[in-house]
Amino acid sequence: MARMNESELIERFLRHAGAPRTDVTLGIGDDAAIVTVPAGQELVLTTDALVEGAHFLPGSPARSLGHRSLAINLSDLAAMGALPRWALLSLTMPDADAGWLEAFVAGFSALAREHQVALVGGNLTRGPLSITVQLAGVVPTGTALRRSGARAGDLLCVSGTLGDARGGLELQQGLLAAAAEPAAALLARFEYPTARVALGSELRAVASACIDISDGLLTDAGRLLTASRVGAQLRVGQLPLSAALQQALGDRAWQHALLGGEDYELCFTVPPARAGQLAQLSQRLGVACTACGVVRAETGLELLGAAGVMQFSAAPFDHFQRAD
Amino acid sequence: MARMNESELIERFLRHAGAPRTDVTLGIGDDAAIVTVPAGQELVLTTDALVEGAHFLPGSPARSLGHRSLAINLSDLAAMGALPRWALLSLTMPDADAGWLEAFVAGFSALAREHQVALVGGNLTRGPLSITVQLAGVVPTGTALRRSGARAGDLLCVSGTLGDARGGLELQQGLLAAAAEPAAALLARFEYPTARVALGSELRAVASACIDISDGLLTDAGRLLTASRVGAQLRVGQLPLSAALQQALGDRAWQHALLGGEDYELCFTVPPARAGQLAQLSQRLGVACTACGVVRAETGLELLGAAGVMQFSAAPFDHFQRAD
Repeated sequence: MARMNESELIERFLRHAGAPRTDVTLGIGDDAAIVTVPAGQELVLTTDALVEGAHFLPGSPARSLGHRSLAINLSDLAAMGALPRWALLSLTMPDADAGWLEAFVAGFSALAREHQVALVGGNLTRGPLSITVQLAGVVPTGTALRRSGARAGDLLCVSGTLGDARGGLELQQGLLAAAAEPAAALLARFEYPTARVALGSELRAVASACIDISDGLLTDAGRLLTASRVGAQLRVGQLPLSAALQQALGDRAWQHALLGGEDYELCFTVPPARAGQLAQLSQRLGVACTACGVVRAETGLELLGAAGVMQFSAAPFDHFQRAD
Repeated sequence: MARMNESELIERFLRHAGAPRTDVTLGIGDDAAIVTVPAGQELVLTTDALVEGAHFLPGSPARSLGHRSLAINLSDLAAMGALPRWALLSLTMPDADAGWLEAFVAGFSALAREHQVALVGGNLTRGPLSITVQLAGVVPTGTALRRSGARAGDLLCVSGTLGDARGGLELQQGLLAAAAEPAAALLARFEYPTARVALGSELRAVASACIDISDGLLTDAGRLLTASRVGAQLRVGQLPLSAALQQALGDRAWQHALLGGEDYELCFTVPPARAGQLAQLSQRLGVACTACGVVRAETGLELLGAAGVMQFSAAPFDHFQRAD
């Protein structure tokens, strides 16, 4: 395949990626994009990166990376209750590999279209593989969810099931073995996470605080509680576990649910009076929402196992912690 | 110095970087930022990256990289006539080096404050040094400058002086030698480029099209002309050259002015009837604006030297072109 330059690659692969939107006045092809934020809406901005070696292994499928690079940003907006609108993509790759780029954009674009996100800007640079996406969304003024709204007595809830992505990553790393069916399920959860966009938006009417689970429930619930200046008791036996994770890990599944990163589920708090609303919402959207703890005034996160309070020490997930 | 984790580094170095803004409802510290776009304004979005090896040499001063990473994005908004408002920073660095980060943020923050830009989001990852900034700005609805508005007869103009940054880069690379004073001037132009934000905003009332010069005048003027479906005659003898570049390069200075990247000056077209307005604007802002060519219907960019039409073949600047 002939080498293409940056402009040609952008023209061929990026210009028509994502969803068309009528609020995009000017998309890819000028110095910047022009879009319109509707009256009565605030603008919600986030950025997140996938860096080879830190967030994914060399040789990871390009399509999955395209999906994940957008999903991790969608998840941030979901945690605010915002609806995603416009994305920018900054891609550094070792070679102008059109085949890789085509698969990457296919993954990115399919997810973008699912959420009506337009790709309005992008740049390509030669260098170590690294993907940075910026995502802008909107939320009715004054209604965004934050980490800081949890109050004593609120239910501590999570969406979906937890720990699957960590299981998928360990399968990919050869650290875990599992039968074909659960292995495929876990790997899919790692490579193609589901951002809870619709749930997050609806939670604006139900939840008191929300965060997305990117670094593991223990870490992210801790962040929510710290921002709210409260604590919680968490019942480990109530953590939602997939059948696949239980098949693959047995008794150790709860540890992945508590510590495993990359889930991109939501962790949120709900006043008890709205528990019924949450149940209805969960059913309507077809997304499991599980109460696994209770917020209390005393700070700190206390884990309750079957035999009582658990002693548990764990280092929080951090991209700057070394494994050595 | 003790190793810090990502959250600590963000808290210490990024949370208070940039300018405070009253339209920032929620800044760094939640899943995403919340800001308000004023009524009657469109949102203008851009992103650009600096990657070690592609855009800067290993060992480049951190403060300069902080400045440049924002300046290249400010320049994109300037080319649209937009005013910058909110920035997001995604930084990949080999180590959690607090000293480096402090100098980087000092460079970023000083420029951000100069332009009243708030830093509303950021993330840090361990990996090869790479800096991606997303910048959002505003422009009164329907008034943004584009590349596509040039018409036959318009003057082809540039701001400031051209080629200095290329001279500075070559000094840094040891490819060029110069006396101390011009060397310092050229190096400063490479390491601390000036984004023409005020000029770009004022050009909305004067210019018919605009682009920023990041890849060299020949390339970027070519993009403007292509987008406008016109061509131009460019008088090489009228290219604005700094005294420093002429001292360092003598007769070859015009080649740097034509081909050198990283200038971050504006290239724009002005209908002849507004030439007087441009002169007034240039004087009021204290920014040289030089007409060095004329737009014509015939496509292509023809270079006129002292002796007539110049034969000139040059590869356009591209981050995917190899030097070998």
